[in-house]
Order: sequence, then structure tokens, then C-alpha cells
Amino acid sequence: MAPMKVTVVGSGNWGSAIARIVGSTVAEYTDDFDTTVRMWVHEEIWHGMKLSEVINQQHENPKYLPGKKLPGNVVAVTDLVEACEHSDLLVFVVPHQFVSGVCKQLQGHLKEGALAISLIKGLMAIHKMGGIRLVSEEIQDILHIDVAVLMGANLAPEVANDNFCEATIGYQGSAETRALLKKLFQTENFRINVVKDAHTVELCGALKNIVACAAGITDGLGYGDNTKAAVIRLGLMEITKFVEHFYPGSNLETFFESCGIADLITTCYGGRNRKVCEAFVRTGKPLKVVEEELLKGQSAQGPLCAEEVYGMLKHFKMESKFPVFCAVHKICSGEMEPANLITCLRHHPEHH
Amino acid sequence: MAPMKVTVVGSGNWGSAIARIVGSTVAEYTDDFDTTVRMWVHEEIWHGMKLSEVINQQHENPKYLPGKKLPGNVVAVTDLVEACEHSDLLVFVVPHQFVSGVCKQLQGHLKEGALAISLIKGLMAIHKMGGIRLVSEEIQDILHIDVAVLMGANLAPEVANDNFCEATIGYQGSAETRALLKKLFQTENFRINVVKDAHTVELCGALKNIVACAAGITDGLGYGDNTKAAVIRLGLMEITKFVEHFYPGSNLETFFESCGIADLITTCYGGRNRKVCEAFVRTGKPLKVVEEELLKGQSAQGPLCAEEVYGMLKHFKMESKFPVFCAVHKICSGEMEPANLITCLRHHPEHH
Repeated sequence: MAPMKVTVVGSGNWGSAIARIVGSTVAEYTDDFDTTVRMWVHEEIWHGMKLSEVINQQHENPKYLPGKKLPGNVVAVTDLVEACEHSDLLVFVVPHQFVSGVCKQLQGHLKEGALAISLIKGLMAIHKMGGIRLVSEEIQDILHIDVAVLMGANLAPEVANDNFCEATIGYQGSAETRALLKKLFQTENFRINVVKDAHTVELCGALKNIVACAAGITDGLGYGDNTKAAVIRLGLMEITKFVEHFYPGSNLETFFESCGIADLITTCYGGRNRKVCEAFVRTGKPLKVVEEELLKGQSAQGPLCAEEVYGMLKHFKMESKFPVFCAVHKICSGEMEPANLITCLRHHPEHH
Repeated sequence: MAPMKVTVVGSGNWGSAIARIVGSTVAEYTDDFDTTVRMWVHEEIWHGMKLSEVINQQHENPKYLPGKKLPGNVVAVTDLVEACEHSDLLVFVVPHQFVSGVCKQLQGHLKEGALAISLIKGLMAIHKMGGIRLVSEEIQDILHIDVAVLMGANLAPEVANDNFCEATIGYQGSAETRALLKKLFQTENFRINVVKDAHTVELCGALKNIVACAAGITDGLGYGDNTKAAVIRLGLMEITKFVEHFYPGSNLETFFESCGIADLITTCYGGRNRKVCEAFVRTGKPLKVVEEELLKGQSAQGPLCAEEVYGMLKHFKMESKFPVFCAVHKICSGEMEPANLITCLRHHPEHH
């Protein structure tokens, strides 16, 4: 088989951090991978220079990942089609609101048999009730290519810092490709497990943010560690039930992977959704105001994700089986008092 | 069936907190339970008065659970045999180093068919290699009675404060008894799930402390959330493997109960083992010194538990399958540099 050509589609902090990794691994496994990694850069001006040129001259992305050298074989390309058209593997790591647009630009320009892997955590925004849509499904539907996912407890700055961490790849295709994906992403300090149920892996990455909101609400209400642990656990049970109901065939062991409990734990303790919801409850300010104050232009995914999921649960008349998910939406949207989260928990179906 | 008589064997803060709960539930379900709950109090003098008398007059244990009223039907009894001899259910909640002595005093004095439930988290200290011993096994071996267990993310002060939390009961006996145990312990704010594999429930309660030490070591080394999440996850995987190997027949779902991931999470973030190990690594002081400084006379269970478990793993030549457990023992005993924990993780069998 010819060596696989890899393109990183995106160059924010997570894109740059992952480009550091794949740049080093392709250089190590030259039988398996082409030694050049293209990285698509949405051109912008940084300190009076083109960002792509700065990256290619300084081998660093000073805007999104300052201080971290990129391997010399990572080449910034500003034309999306040029960056992707000859590639065998597209590593999607753009903000999820850009996914559809990017994919549409690539339609008809990809190599036969190309594969994608999505590192994007979140759900596509849909404006009708009755369904959610995964980022991987969006990519697959527009480009008609196979899509793997990579999720886990791996905050970009810590990965870029070479701290030890783990990630989970979900891919249902051939064992050979699974092995190649592991080779491409695994380093001494970034350890990969590959599992087959990709939808479970991806849904864990999206739904955890709803649970993190619930954890933040209990923090805001002043409860201690036990209550928070109960909320995290009951939220996890809802994640497993949701996946099993809407994407049947998940393996319980997948929830023990980095994409499952590990990412959930870090998000419920250190994540921005937790933080925003805690402040929302403590201060009583509108969620939007709290978000602006704390996140400086970024947004919290949890309330949006909860809204989508709530719409779906309502459509299927399943609200009573998912009290944590529903309460997060109702509290974030002002329909329910935060303290009522606890009332919902008291009647949780897990205890019957 | 005659109403079940309940005795709480122990009156520390956890014993007193659980006596509040069972005192209220027996009063609610008078068909199922005798309305008096005996609580064995190891007599001591408190502000010049007998503690048992203070409890019976003030309906409060001012030494161990000040400010929390006990129901009037909880009666302190200082004679161990008198407190237990007519009981159908003994709720063991003494420090684990007193279990053997208490049980020996009760030998030959219990009612036919009496049942015990242990709320004690930890392993019995054994001084020979090649085996561990559960508290429930110790009780069963000395008293020849059936033993259930109750574990979970339920710190006594938060339970006593009526914060919402959960617990898991493990009991392999009849469905009728499982239902009774749930009735006895469940309140609006203390939610119970009952599962059959009691050994799994109990082992989760003991082994989590080893993982909490590992989490504390990464905190002490200055690592962030990703690394800690990886350590917690890999530690959990070792707990599941350990249980499956030495007490086969566990149900993977039990690890999703409060006794499993929930208790593990709170312990790895808020617990004393985490705290002691972080300080041990940060300051470089001997573990004993750090324990004395931070815990004021209490001891951290994790290093002791790791020592017992390490002896067992070494005996069975299984060290390589449990790198987190083994590293915790070696680091706490000074045989290994803390930073080498990360090296052990890089070669963890979970990633192969």
C-alpha cells in the first residue's frame, strides 16, 4: 500500500497540537505515511504578517499555540482544496459551526477512498425537532467518505505540553486501518485505544457537556462532593441510556475509555460548562452575560447541546427517563429553578 | 415475618449519621422494622458526662456529630452483647481495626439467622503474603452470618447534612431481604441501589484509596487534568481487573454504581489519600510526617491498602498487569521516585 497522505483540516490550538503529534509520527513510520503533513490554515493576518507564512517560516503557530514548535514536515496550506485533494486521511479539527461549509467546499475534490477522522466535540445545530446529528454524520453525508472519531480527556494545551494523557479512537472499518490510526496518533505521552463503536465515542464527547452543566449547577447551589458525584454518575447513566436507545449496539466497556468517564470527570471538574453554570446559579445573571464575562467570546456547548437533546427527548416522549438532561435545559433556559435539579434527582429512574 | 430489629454497631460520625437515617426509616415502616434502633456506644467521658447518657438525653452525639439530632427511637447501649443479642440486623460501622475484636465478643451471642451489613471501607490487615481479606469475610468467618455491604460516595458530614447523595448495597441473598435493606437505608436524600455482587461493591470501596494516592501523586508532580483523568481511568481499569481475577463473576455495571466511579471520583478529588500523597510528593517529607501534619491522628488508608495489594500481586507474579497499584506502593514506601509513575503509565497494558 502506498504511504498514507495526511491533512490536518484546521489550525486552532487543538489542530496545532495534533499537527505536532502527527508530524512526529509520520516521520517515524515512513513506510506507512507520507512524510509531509499538510495543515489547512484559514488565512489571517497576525502582527502584520500572513499567519500561514509565519507558521511555515517559524514552524510555530504563534497565534493559537505559542511557544510550541511544529515539526518541519508540517506545512501550512491556505487553499482548502489544495490542502486536501491528494490526501488519504483528513483530520477534521475545525470549530463545529464551520464543518458543513468546509465539507461543501471539498465536495468532488477528494481522492477515491479517502478517510476522515473528526476530533470535533459537539453536535450539529439542527433547527427541527426530533433528531440530533453527529459531526461525523454531517461529514459522511456531504462527502460520502468513511469517518472515524478521536475523543478523550485531552485538553489541547496539556497535549501540546507533552503531558501524559489518553484518547479514544472510534472506527468501525478494517482492523488494518484501525492499526494505522493508532500508529498515527499515539506517542509516548498521548496514548490511544481504538474501539469499534464510533458513535458511542462521539456521543460521549458531546453529551458530557450537558452533565458538566449539571455538575456546575450543584456547585452553584453550594452542594458538596457527594451530591456532585451523584449528578456525574446519574448523568453518565443517562449518556449510556441515550446512546443505547438512539445508536444501539454500544459496548459498555467503551464508557470506561478515555472518551467516557475520563473526559466526563475532567469536564465536570475543570471545564468551562461547569464554570459557567456555577456562576449562572450563584450570581443569578443571565447565562449569556455570564458566558461573556467568563469565556471572552467563546461559548459554552452544554446549554446548546442540552437544548438539542431536550427537543429530541420531548419529541419521543422520553423526558422522564432523562431527568438530568432535561433539567439542565430547563434551568439554562430559565424554565426551572436551579434548586429543582435536586428534586429531579430524587425521582431518578436509576433508583427504581 | 416479625419486624426486624436493627442495631448500629458503632457511633462515630458515620455510625451516627446512619443511625439518623435508620431511626427515621424504621419509624416509617413499622410493619417491617422494630421501632427501636439500638446503637452500640463505646463508652467514653465527654465534658465530664458519659457519652451514652448524653446521647440518650439530648438525642445527639455531640462528640462525633455535633448539631445533628438523632431520632428519639435511637437508643445508645454501652454493652456490646446487650446491644446486639436480640437483633436481626447488625449495621457494622466501627473503624476497621476494631472489627475482629468486636466480632469475637459477639461470638455465640447472636440471634439465629441474624444478618450483618458492613459500612466499613478498607481491607483487613494481614501480615502474610499472598492474600487479602475483606471486612465482610472477617465478620462472616468469626460470626458465621450472612454479610451485606453498603458503600458509595457518601461522606458522613454531607449525609448528616441531608445533602442529596447515593449509596450502593451489595447482597447476594434473597430478593426479599434486598428489598428490606433498601427500605431501611433509603430516604429522600440518600438514594440506594441494591446489586448482587457484594464483593465488587466492597472492593471498590477499598481499592479506590490506592487510585486516590496515584491521583495525589500526579497533583504533587504538577500535572493537569488530563493526566489525572488518565490515572483515575487506568486505576479504575485495574480495580475491575483485580476484582474479576480474584473475585470472579463481577458485573461490569456495578462499577457504574455509586460505590464505583462516583466514590472513586470524589475520593480522587476531595479525599484525604489524595491530599496526603500530593503533599508527600510536593514537600519530599516522609509520608508519616505528612500524615501527622495533615490528618491530625487519622491515617490514610491508601498506602496501607496498596501495601497489602502489592504483596498479593507479587505473590501471584502479576505486578506487570497492575502498574498503578504497584507504583503507588513503591512510591509511598520510598522504593520509587514519584516521577516514575508516569513511566509506568506509558507502558500500561490497557494501551496494548
